Amino acid sequence: METIETLKKSGCRIIQGTDNFRFGIDAVLLAHFTKIRRGQSVCDLCTGTGIIPILFAANKKSQNIAGIEIDDTSFDMASRSVALNDFENKIKIVHGDLKQIKKHFKADSFNVVTVNPPYFKADSGKENIVASKNAARHEIFCNLEDVIKAARYLVVSGGSFFMIHKPERLSEIFLLLQKYQLEPKRLCMVQPDASKAPNLVLVEARRDAKSELKVEVPLVVYKEKGIYSDQVQAIYEELV
Amino acid sequence: METIETLKKSGCRIIQGTDNFRFGIDAVLLAHFTKIRRGQSVCDLCTGTGIIPILFAANKKSQNIAGIEIDDTSFDMASRSVALNDFENKIKIVHGDLKQIKKHFKADSFNVVTVNPPYFKADSGKENIVASKNAARHEIFCNLEDVIKAARYLVVSGGSFFMIHKPERLSEIFLLLQKYQLEPKRLCMVQPDASKAPNLVLVEARRDAKSELKVEVPLVVYKEKGIYSDQVQAIYEELV
Repeated sequence: METIETLKKSGCRIIQGTDNFRFGIDAVLLAHFTKIRRGQSVCDLCTGTGIIPILFAANKKSQNIAGIEIDDTSFDMASRSVALNDFENKIKIVHGDLKQIKKHFKADSFNVVTVNPPYFKADSGKENIVASKNAARHEIFCNLEDVIKAARYLVVSGGSFFMIHKPERLSEIFLLLQKYQLEPKRLCMVQPDASKAPNLVLVEARRDAKSELKVEVPLVVYKEKGIYSDQVQAIYEELV
Repeated sequence: METIETLKKSGCRIIQGTDNFRFGIDAVLLAHFTKIRRGQSVCDLCTGTGIIPILFAANKKSQNIAGIEIDDTSFDMASRSVALNDFENKIKIVHGDLKQIKKHFKADSFNVVTVNPPYFKADSGKENIVASKNAARHEIFCNLEDVIKAARYLVVSGGSFFMIHKPERLSEIFLLLQKYQLEPKRLCMVQPDASKAPNLVLVEARRDAKSELKVEVPLVVYKEKGIYSDQVQAIYEELV
């Protein structure tokens, strides 16, 4: 079954399954963390139902957006959401495998690359019944290195790569980013509340940049049970 | 000129110059972050006036502690502090260069290695007039790679390395740790207060371990201007 969720601020609509992966705070935080300058192009890897491209187009962050998704169901929903919002001239969703990124895009062809990838290794945790939800959470179709390698191929020298991931994998993330000449430049930890350890991390890396990392004030999601912090509330009001 | 500072809890004394590097919160946070099991040996690199070894001995965290320091003045003060506290049977301060660590210690000879190294590259910031203070802050005698290479040489397989450093250099730190088979396992950001970005980071790495990082709740130093947070207050009461 499907639902159509209307974004409050822009009135844009997004088609999602009730039983596959629905967009959550991760996508919103990543869209907010991503810095796009006027006229820059963006490619969103593992785009799923296309929430990141739609947030960018809805908020006029870019007019030249691509997304790539391997899963049939998610790709189909993303394509229909693009049409539903008349974003065909701004967003191009590609049905394909990022491990074969060269088939779909030219090298160095984007200013910005974003990704909210599967967080967990293929063999970790309990398998999820719905295949597309499982692939969104677990490294079924691609792993962290595949994602970073594709980002390196797509992003122009000096361009930026933005990712949200789990803090547990930060050491692996840094190693792989540097392997592919993507230098970590900005990092923001996300804590569920001020008393809890971070459970998400936002990372910006820049291709061929020199080594110097800016660690930001951590983002705290809830100020009390069920109530977003002022900061996260403001992010939702700004983007969603 | 020299001062002798008495640690409140243990009554231990530490000799420091009024014009060279004096121990601060960095050393206390590192000593607290360091986990040493009963009977384990520790080597403290860039030990300065010996505050880390003295905190370990004073708090019975280890009875088998070495420190190495290249600067004449700091080495001399550290040695006299050890004698002043009758710690000669627990702490051995070595006057030497960690770039020639093999001259002083056997490989794989410590369970734990700690370091509060110089934070800044040799060519960064304004030069400090007092040589020993400059060397404590700037990479004059050794750089980050020298420190990590020495740690790798000293620590036994499965043993731990604890370091405090600047978040700006985290990407470089992770790269070098992994180059020397020291896998980052635990990370704690330190924020001056809850509204400010981290200005210190505590890292634990384990030699030959598998990749999985635990990021802890950040440590907040001040709850208001000049007043330590309850957590930092508790750390001082426990150790100093």
